[in-house]
Amino acid sequence: MQQRLTDYARLIVEVGANVQAGQTVLVAASVDSACFARLIAEKAYDAGAREVVTRFYDEQLKRMHFLRADAAVFDEVARWVPEFYNEYAEKGAALISITAADPELLLGVDPDRIQRSNISTGTALKGFYDKQMSNAFPWTIAAIPSEAWAKKVFPDLPPAEAVERLWDAIFTAVHVGAGDPVVVWREKIKTMDTRAAALNAHRFQKLRYKNSLGTDLTLTLPEEHLWTACGEEAGTGQVFVANMPTEEIFVLPDKRGTEGVVCASMPLSLNGNLVEDIKLTFEGGKIVKAEASKGLEHLEKELDIDEGARYLGEIALVPYRSPISEMGILFYNTLFDENASCHLAFGKAYPKFRDMAERTEEELLVRGMNDSLVHVDFMIGTADLEITGMTEDGREVAVFRDGNFAEGFGV
Amino acid sequence: MQQRLTDYARLIVEVGANVQAGQTVLVAASVDSACFARLIAEKAYDAGAREVVTRFYDEQLKRMHFLRADAAVFDEVARWVPEFYNEYAEKGAALISITAADPELLLGVDPDRIQRSNISTGTALKGFYDKQMSNAFPWTIAAIPSEAWAKKVFPDLPPAEAVERLWDAIFTAVHVGAGDPVVVWREKIKTMDTRAAALNAHRFQKLRYKNSLGTDLTLTLPEEHLWTACGEEAGTGQVFVANMPTEEIFVLPDKRGTEGVVCASMPLSLNGNLVEDIKLTFEGGKIVKAEASKGLEHLEKELDIDEGARYLGEIALVPYRSPISEMGILFYNTLFDENASCHLAFGKAYPKFRDMAERTEEELLVRGMNDSLVHVDFMIGTADLEITGMTEDGREVAVFRDGNFAEGFGV
Repeated sequence: MQQRLTDYARLIVEVGANVQAGQTVLVAASVDSACFARLIAEKAYDAGAREVVTRFYDEQLKRMHFLRADAAVFDEVARWVPEFYNEYAEKGAALISITAADPELLLGVDPDRIQRSNISTGTALKGFYDKQMSNAFPWTIAAIPSEAWAKKVFPDLPPAEAVERLWDAIFTAVHVGAGDPVVVWREKIKTMDTRAAALNAHRFQKLRYKNSLGTDLTLTLPEEHLWTACGEEAGTGQVFVANMPTEEIFVLPDKRGTEGVVCASMPLSLNGNLVEDIKLTFEGGKIVKAEASKGLEHLEKELDIDEGARYLGEIALVPYRSPISEMGILFYNTLFDENASCHLAFGKAYPKFRDMAERTEEELLVRGMNDSLVHVDFMIGTADLEITGMTEDGREVAVFRDGNFAEGFGV
Repeated sequence: MQQRLTDYARLIVEVGANVQAGQTVLVAASVDSACFARLIAEKAYDAGAREVVTRFYDEQLKRMHFLRADAAVFDEVARWVPEFYNEYAEKGAALISITAADPELLLGVDPDRIQRSNISTGTALKGFYDKQMSNAFPWTIAAIPSEAWAKKVFPDLPPAEAVERLWDAIFTAVHVGAGDPVVVWREKIKTMDTRAAALNAHRFQKLRYKNSLGTDLTLTLPEEHLWTACGEEAGTGQVFVANMPTEEIFVLPDKRGTEGVVCASMPLSLNGNLVEDIKLTFEGGKIVKAEASKGLEHLEKELDIDEGARYLGEIALVPYRSPISEMGILFYNTLFDENASCHLAFGKAYPKFRDMAERTEEELLVRGMNDSLVHVDFMIGTADLEITGMTEDGREVAVFRDGNFAEGFGV
């Protein structure tokens, strides 16, 4: 176990954030993850970090805050909060987030409080999130178990065993336990880059999604869009991996060109509440109807945050036979579930264009890049998902068949 | 145990910080104290707190920082740090610090790094500490055990038992376990105020300290000085108790009027290192010679931080028969040891004057109030300590005899 923990921490530091000598490292972790945060700090110093700054939070206090604080606080953000994030962004610090979230942390909390908090925090941190989503600095998100999370994933096991099983699942998902994971990941980045290149070669104009769940959706890709895999380059020049695990190749849509219906294939933990059986109907790019069998009020609140929340910001392709999917575990955690399944996100887009460097933000918005305070991934992959690409010259290309990449897009 | 924990948390909130309805509460706690921090937050919300903000730190990461960070960071303070504290000070927030410090946390760390960090942090937070020491907002410091601390106090016990014993000792020191501690403390504040009044009635000009340890010291009290007990009034109007436990009556000296020699009677945990057998020689108020059998380099570094570090800033009277002293435990923690023993502090003074409200800071400095980036208490009480007061009209009054208050100053 200790060896796997150490390997995992080293992987997060060396491949995830790819910490460079002399770089400041900012770690965000829950107080219950303090042991692992210390291991991350150790590995960061081993990598030559100038300084490791850790911001600890506590989920139980977060819940108490949402339940008991004065209602007015949800419209406010302390001045020091954006100062904090902007200062480390300016320094080009590497940001490492360790999550261990309880999927239903905010069950029973007034959705209005959550929405107001998301609006005020999102607005105060807009500049920071813009920098993060355009990779001004390297950042990575990885997970470790918490008891609350493990109990949700393995409800029939005793807590300690559930935690152990979740550790095993996480290690499997991030390729820890079979040789040097740093080497495994460097190889993986290359393989996934090849797949992204195959998608880019087609310069698709549209993608049509269909499956037996009821999805019948047409997406439009913007001019000069760039399918991207896990190895991204930060403004600081270092190649980093934003999510661990990762199995996706992703791009942004032209926000105006989404038509039809999409049905989610997994529950979504949204703002500490589960939303199940999501069904979204699009017209002219906009979500004009949102349905869910559970947690609809949380979904509606999120979609009402701003105009951009009702448009898509991400298209991600993940084979149904992905290593994570094959574990057959529902993680109730987007970091894992989104890498077991094709997914979309509504809200702000990651700016992924071939000619990024020469374009202004305004030019990208004109191409249909979406902006919003929110960015919410939701899973739509199924065993029978078919995705067909349409090229500029009118050809149709099978991209997904039977839930997996079709021929020509790698194994 | 749960009842005592709850009582203790309620005591800290209701008497220590005396949290008012609608007030913001800032809690500082180590990640290992998260459970207790949650209890504090609960009690603070029960008291009507508007919002509880918790800042968690980790001692092991602090040690790693001092050992491994780039040397240049010790001369810097991130901009958000003073922003953070100043923002809550401006709001009149109640500040609750939960300490659980390892007395030798920074053993083996280069004292130069510690000194530089103290200078840069002290300078960046000078405005905040000035506000705190003049009680612009209510603040309180209380302790809970950590394993590292408990092992130092009870080195012969197994760790779990040592922690349990330390809990018992803490509960005894803060009067938890015998009736409603809030009621006990309200009574205690009254008793101690009576003792402070008795001292104030004499308007002493000088105090002479003598004991068999080698102490032979004369202290000078400034014009209009005000002996103060534990119930202090904050700028926000609420009466709070800055330290829990507390057994001291304290005042500030005229910094220029200290002459002679004082010998410490207990080890001092200073910047995460133990300093033992401290002996200080004063001329014209200034420490001209510092001696110690252990840790002298840490003491010297602290005294060299600025000019004011070599002058006294506090005189505190605690009977040798104080409830804490009678436990016969050396806590290696100033919060406890200083309340088992008469003590002095070198460095910045708490401004304690009868006519505070009508005086400017400049006028108080002219009276001999000391200013510095540091404030370090050290224990000097012994079973044979004699303190004699000299009044304006030349009378000598026995203040302490055989280590305890002389007749006329209460039991």
